[in-house]
Amino acid sequence: MQTITSLAKQMHAQRPLPRNDIGMRLRGMGSFHVGGYRHSITHGEPRMVQLTQTGHPALFDPNGTYMIGQMYVQYFLPDPHQHNLPLLMWHGGGLTGACWETTPDGRPGFRDIFLAGGWDVFVSDAVERGRSGFAPVPDVWGPPISQTIETVFERFRIGAYLPKGELARASQHVYPGTAFPVEALDRFAAQMVPRWTNTNGYILDAYLEELEATGPAVILAHSQGCVFALEAAARRPDLVAALVLLEPAAIPELPASFIAADLPMLVMLGDFIERSKRWMKMQRDITRFVSCNDHAELLQLPEHGLEGNSHMLMMDRTSDKVAELIMNWLAKQELSV
Amino acid sequence: MQTITSLAKQMHAQRPLPRNDIGMRLRGMGSFHVGGYRHSITHGEPRMVQLTQTGHPALFDPNGTYMIGQMYVQYFLPDPHQHNLPLLMWHGGGLTGACWETTPDGRPGFRDIFLAGGWDVFVSDAVERGRSGFAPVPDVWGPPISQTIETVFERFRIGAYLPKGELARASQHVYPGTAFPVEALDRFAAQMVPRWTNTNGYILDAYLEELEATGPAVILAHSQGCVFALEAAARRPDLVAALVLLEPAAIPELPASFIAADLPMLVMLGDFIERSKRWMKMQRDITRFVSCNDHAELLQLPEHGLEGNSHMLMMDRTSDKVAELIMNWLAKQELSV
Repeated sequence: MQTITSLAKQMHAQRPLPRNDIGMRLRGMGSFHVGGYRHSITHGEPRMVQLTQTGHPALFDPNGTYMIGQMYVQYFLPDPHQHNLPLLMWHGGGLTGACWETTPDGRPGFRDIFLAGGWDVFVSDAVERGRSGFAPVPDVWGPPISQTIETVFERFRIGAYLPKGELARASQHVYPGTAFPVEALDRFAAQMVPRWTNTNGYILDAYLEELEATGPAVILAHSQGCVFALEAAARRPDLVAALVLLEPAAIPELPASFIAADLPMLVMLGDFIERSKRWMKMQRDITRFVSCNDHAELLQLPEHGLEGNSHMLMMDRTSDKVAELIMNWLAKQELSV
Repeated sequence: MQTITSLAKQMHAQRPLPRNDIGMRLRGMGSFHVGGYRHSITHGEPRMVQLTQTGHPALFDPNGTYMIGQMYVQYFLPDPHQHNLPLLMWHGGGLTGACWETTPDGRPGFRDIFLAGGWDVFVSDAVERGRSGFAPVPDVWGPPISQTIETVFERFRIGAYLPKGELARASQHVYPGTAFPVEALDRFAAQMVPRWTNTNGYILDAYLEELEATGPAVILAHSQGCVFALEAAARRPDLVAALVLLEPAAIPELPASFIAADLPMLVMLGDFIERSKRWMKMQRDITRFVSCNDHAELLQLPEHGLEGNSHMLMMDRTSDKVAELIMNWLAKQELSV
C-alpha cells in the first residue's frame, strides 16, 4: 500500500485550497432524497458490534426495515436566475454528483459554470452511489463492482492500455494531445465509487421522482446517465424539455412515440473514438439514433475545433468551452414542455 | 416491497421543493477529495459485464489498482465571512455530510445556519461513506453493516423499542415531547448509509489531511465524528482551535498532553439519556472526561431549557436554537491555535 501525494500537499505548494473563484449570490440551496422503498430482512444473525472504537458495544440486529432505492439531490438556485426551467445533472456509472462540482485539477466544474449562466442546478447521486447510500450487502443486490484506475484510463479514452506496473507512468501513455488533466489522475480516481449493475429499475424510478419534484426540466447527462435520461424522457415527456447527452454509454430501446416527439436533443462525443472498438460501436449506435430523430443533433467535438477530449468532457482542460457550446445550443432552443 | 410516499408527493402538496430560504452570497464553493492510498488486487477473475443496459458488454477485470481511503470534502465560503477560522463539520456513523444540509422535514440545516453566521463551512463524508466511495467489497474491508430504521429509532433516542410490525405506527412510540420530526422518519432513514467498523485508521488519516488542507479550524462533530475530532486534536493541536462535540458516541483514549492542553471544548447532550442503559454509560464517560479537562464544558440541553432532543440535535425541531447556543459559545472563546 503506497501513500499518494495528497491533494493537501499538492495544493499547499501553490494555494491553500482549490478555491473556486466564481463568487455568486444564491436564492437558496439545500438537499433532499427522493424515492426509496422499505425493505425487510428477517433471517439475519444478531450479534454484538463495536460501532465506535473505545465505545460501549451495541447489539447489531440486521433484522428489520431498511430504506433502499432512495436518491440524493442537492440543489443550488442562483440569484438572479435567467431560465424558467431547472437544469438536472445526471452523472455516469462509477461516479457521483461530485464529478460536476470541481474538476480533478481544481477548476470550477459544470455546476458552477451553469450557475454563473443563471441556471437553477440540481445535482444528484444515482441510487446506490454516493450520498444515496446502498442496500445492505450482499443480502439485497449482491456485491458491487469497482473499476480499476487502469480500466477507466483506457475505457474513458484518456490513453492506451496500461501494461502491468505502468500506472506510475500514466502520463507517458496518454493519447497525444489529450485534454484530460492527467496530472490529477489520482484525484479523478478518488471520485470513483463502486456500483451495481442490477439496479437500473431503482435508478430510473428515482430519477422520475426527481423530475416530479422539480417539475419540467432540462437534463444534462453523462455516460450511463444518458440512458436514464432517454428513458425518463420517453416515460414523462411532460417533464423533460431538452436533453443534453454527453458521451452516452448506450442508446436504450425507446417507444415509437419517442422518435416522433419534438424533444430537442444535443449529443456530444469527444475525441479518440477510433482508438476503441467498443466506442466505435457506440458511435455507430448514436449516429443511427440521431439520424432517426429530427430534433437531435450530434456534435462531435473534434469536428468543431475541440480536440483531445476524453470520455470525461466535464473534466477535460477544455471543459469551459464544452460548457459554452452547451449553453449556446440551449439558448437556441425554444424550451417548453 | 412497499412504496413509500415520496418526498416529491409529500412536498408538492405544500410547496414544490424543500427550498431553503436563506439567500446568501458566496465567495466560492467547490469540492475535493483528500487522502487515499493505491491498493492493488491481483487474484480476481476477469469476466464480461453489461455495465449499461442495452450497452455493449465490457471486460470487467478486477485486477489492478484502486484508490481507497480517500475522503470527499465540500466547502462553502460566505461573503462576507466573519471568522478567521473555518468550521469543519464531521458527521456520525451511518450518515454522510448530507445530515448537515437540510433537515429531514425540509428546514435549513446547520450548514446554512453557520454560513449565515459568517463561517466558512467544510462538510465532509467520512471515508467509505457517501461521495468518498468505498473499497471494492468484500475483497478489502469485508462487508459493511447497515442499521435498520427500528434500530436507529431506539438507539438515537427518538422513541422506545419498536415491536415487530410497529414501524408504520412509529409516531405512537416516540418519547413524549420528542423534538425529532418523526413525520419525516422515512426521509431521515433515506440519509442512512452502510458503514464499516474496521476503517477507523483510514478515517482519522483522511480527517488529518482535511485539517492540513484547510489549516487551523474549529471542528463541529457529531456522534462517531467526535471520536475522530478528539483524536485529531490530540495528534495535531496546531490545527484545532476548538471542538464542539454533539452527542459523542465514545471518548477515545487520549495522551496526557491532551488533558493538559488549553483546547476549548463544548460537549452537548440531548434528552432521554435515562431511557438508554448504553447512553447512561456514555454520559458517565463524558462527564468524567469533561471534569478532567479544564477548558471543556458540558451542556446538557434539558438543563438549559431545551427539552425533547434526540441524538440528532441538528435535525430536531429545535435545531435553530441548538445552533444558536453553539454560535454563542464560539463567540465567547478566544479562538487561536
